[in-house]
Amino acid sequence: MLITLTTDFGYQDSFVGIMKGVIAGINPQARVVDVTHGIPPQDILAGALTLRHSVRYFPRGSIHVAIIDPGVGSARRPLLIEWDGNYFIGPDNGVLSLAVETIEPTHIVHLSNPAYRLKRTSTTFHGRDIFAPAAAHLSLGVPATAFGEPLANIVRVSLPEIAYKKRRLEGEIVYIDHFGNLFTNIRDHDLTGMPRNKLDIVVRSVTIRGLSQNYATAGVGEFLAVVNSWDMLEIAVYKDNAQKRIGAKIGDKVEIALAI
Amino acid sequence: MLITLTTDFGYQDSFVGIMKGVIAGINPQARVVDVTHGIPPQDILAGALTLRHSVRYFPRGSIHVAIIDPGVGSARRPLLIEWDGNYFIGPDNGVLSLAVETIEPTHIVHLSNPAYRLKRTSTTFHGRDIFAPAAAHLSLGVPATAFGEPLANIVRVSLPEIAYKKRRLEGEIVYIDHFGNLFTNIRDHDLTGMPRNKLDIVVRSVTIRGLSQNYATAGVGEFLAVVNSWDMLEIAVYKDNAQKRIGAKIGDKVEIALAI
Amino acid sequence: MLITLTTDFGYQDSFVGIMKGVIAGINPQARVVDVTHGIPPQDILAGALTLRHSVRYFPRGSIHVAIIDPGVGSARRPLLIEWDGNYFIGPDNGVLSLAVETIEPTHIVHLSNPAYRLKRTSTTFHGRDIFAPAAAHLSLGVPATAFGEPLANIVRVSLPEIAYKKRRLEGEIVYIDHFGNLFTNIRDHDLTGMPRNKLDIVVRSVTIRGLSQNYATAGVGEFLAVVNSWDMLEIAVYKDNAQKRIGAKIGDKVEIALAI
Repeated sequence: MLITLTTDFGYQDSFVGIMKGVIAGINPQARVVDVTHGIPPQDILAGALTLRHSVRYFPRGSIHVAIIDPGVGSARRPLLIEWDGNYFIGPDNGVLSLAVETIEPTHIVHLSNPAYRLKRTSTTFHGRDIFAPAAAHLSLGVPATAFGEPLANIVRVSLPEIAYKKRRLEGEIVYIDHFGNLFTNIRDHDLTGMPRNKLDIVVRSVTIRGLSQNYATAGVGEFLAVVNSWDMLEIAVYKDNAQKRIGAKIGDKVEIALAI
Repeated sequence: MLITLTTDFGYQDSFVGIMKGVIAGINPQARVVDVTHGIPPQDILAGALTLRHSVRYFPRGSIHVAIIDPGVGSARRPLLIEWDGNYFIGPDNGVLSLAVETIEPTHIVHLSNPAYRLKRTSTTFHGRDIFAPAAAHLSLGVPATAFGEPLANIVRVSLPEIAYKKRRLEGEIVYIDHFGNLFTNIRDHDLTGMPRNKLDIVVRSVTIRGLSQNYATAGVGEFLAVVNSWDMLEIAVYKDNAQKRIGAKIGDKVEIALAI
Repeated sequence: MLITLTTDFGYQDSFVGIMKGVIAGINPQARVVDVTHGIPPQDILAGALTLRHSVRYFPRGSIHVAIIDPGVGSARRPLLIEWDGNYFIGPDNGVLSLAVETIEPTHIVHLSNPAYRLKRTSTTFHGRDIFAPAAAHLSLGVPATAFGEPLANIVRVSLPEIAYKKRRLEGEIVYIDHFGNLFTNIRDHDLTGMPRNKLDIVVRSVTIRGLSQNYATAGVGEFLAVVNSWDMLEIAVYKDNAQKRIGAKIGDKVEIALAI
């Protein structure tokens, strides 16, 4: 069974390596895949979005560990969720919630059983002490219900809503990738029925006419909009960095209107 | 069979993790090694150089996937090349070309067979939809010729040429590594017959006398020149960052002359 | 047998990928785990600390390769140490020394046997030419003593000492993590007998009253002190970056006094 890791632990320290050591100590055969450790520190929504859009590309039955956890060691509960044949492990602060949205979870479990934690647990690194051991034991076939008591619900986060106004639609930037591409909360299906080549897309002082099929349909250095690999409306610059070009930030408004 | 990945996808997002999920879904036994995902965005030449100097250290028969792909989704073709017993997968924009230079490829194939792509392909992430599936199916033993129609040639990139002048040789910086070491297009064999301890190496306002055996032959903070692990003349500073010290850039001239 | 890698090679270049290729060529079944490649360039102490605090979380018998090696290619010796059932490979400059401190090593070996190096060794990349091959051959069962002649001792590094003064204790910042948390040389046991909620912890212009159980006991943006997952006194800011907030640096004094 595959174990995936999504964290804000970065690439400077040994936090991620130590988690893999703990997993290997419990299940030497476990296969671990890094989704990313580059989630911006403490950015639960970015972690939740990343997880939601990654899960479908992994084999059914995978164990997805997601740790963006500023509340580590506090009253927030460590969770195990079984949902649609996959497993999710992480803190109960919303980071798992976007990935388990559309149907009811089979199990929600509080990771409270000390048998599946390291003997000594710190208050600052549950990735090592609780989450990695849970993933490793689960990968050995321990049933979800053995890890602790069942829970009825979890903390949820949500994306900001799109505003539908007269002849236009107002969303915002919700994620910015490594290339400086600006991901919005406007999904492909939100554009149903709109003439894609007759839209004006406005972010800050930039107006883009129409949706492109791919980045290379714009000239080098020109702004463009595409529906991206997460099925989100994305604003980009061909062979350049849209974020840096206009100083865009998460939360910046993006307006879509029928071109006149 | 080993699959290697070389991309400019960076370490912030889930792009690379998703590719590994796709590969694991097709061939759960595939072994994947990251060469690097830190190629500067859209820098095809840096990707091509990195690939050229990495391949020889992997077992024969490996599948090397290299994706620096600003033209994703456009008319540029996705390629599979069999060359000298190894396999290369990536866009036809030159990123594979330096690795397959010296002899004729056995096969060049256009990755057009939909049976070896994800069912639904995006126009912005062929790493996920075309290249990862191709690598995974190839690792299962699907023959190269099954992936699409044969092609006669590929797009090539090349390093700038060295200029040979009277009593001197003029090259340039072609790659700068994580340590700020400056790699030039001057190869070890370009220096054949020159007295290595009687050369002046000039970059910007810095003149270095003679080639060093290793970094520690210079004093801390001093500039030096070595033939590096890619067999290239490299300019470095012992225990410091040469790039930052002089603001060096790709394309800066490097002159080598017999010391008077 | 697991091989771990701890280096300052970063994530931009192919150095780490090439090492994995070399290992796979010698032992295709070897399992390799990255501890981190983000050690600050040439920072031997940071590498040594990282290794010391990681080893205990990996299965006994693992092979830990640590390469922070500004003296590569010079007279400094490449080492293999067997210590407490684990193996350590790296340059003899102190990077391995904190991990093998408390008891006598079983073996210290100079990696001089050319049979376990690449045929051609460079003077700038012993990770590829000497350390990766040694780890791979060791993982195949070659005994430690076969790699070269025994050595009597190694170069050691040490943390700065804590100063005990009248009613107070003076330490310093010795490591700063990805989150900007400030790790000090004050260990949990150094605080034995002190009333943890009646201490003033002073760094630069910031005074913190008492130790916290976890980050979330402080208000958002407030400074706090915890004993962290390395059992070190750590200064942090809840949901923010302590290093950036006060421009802290390695070597900054940290004073602990009984609150009046």
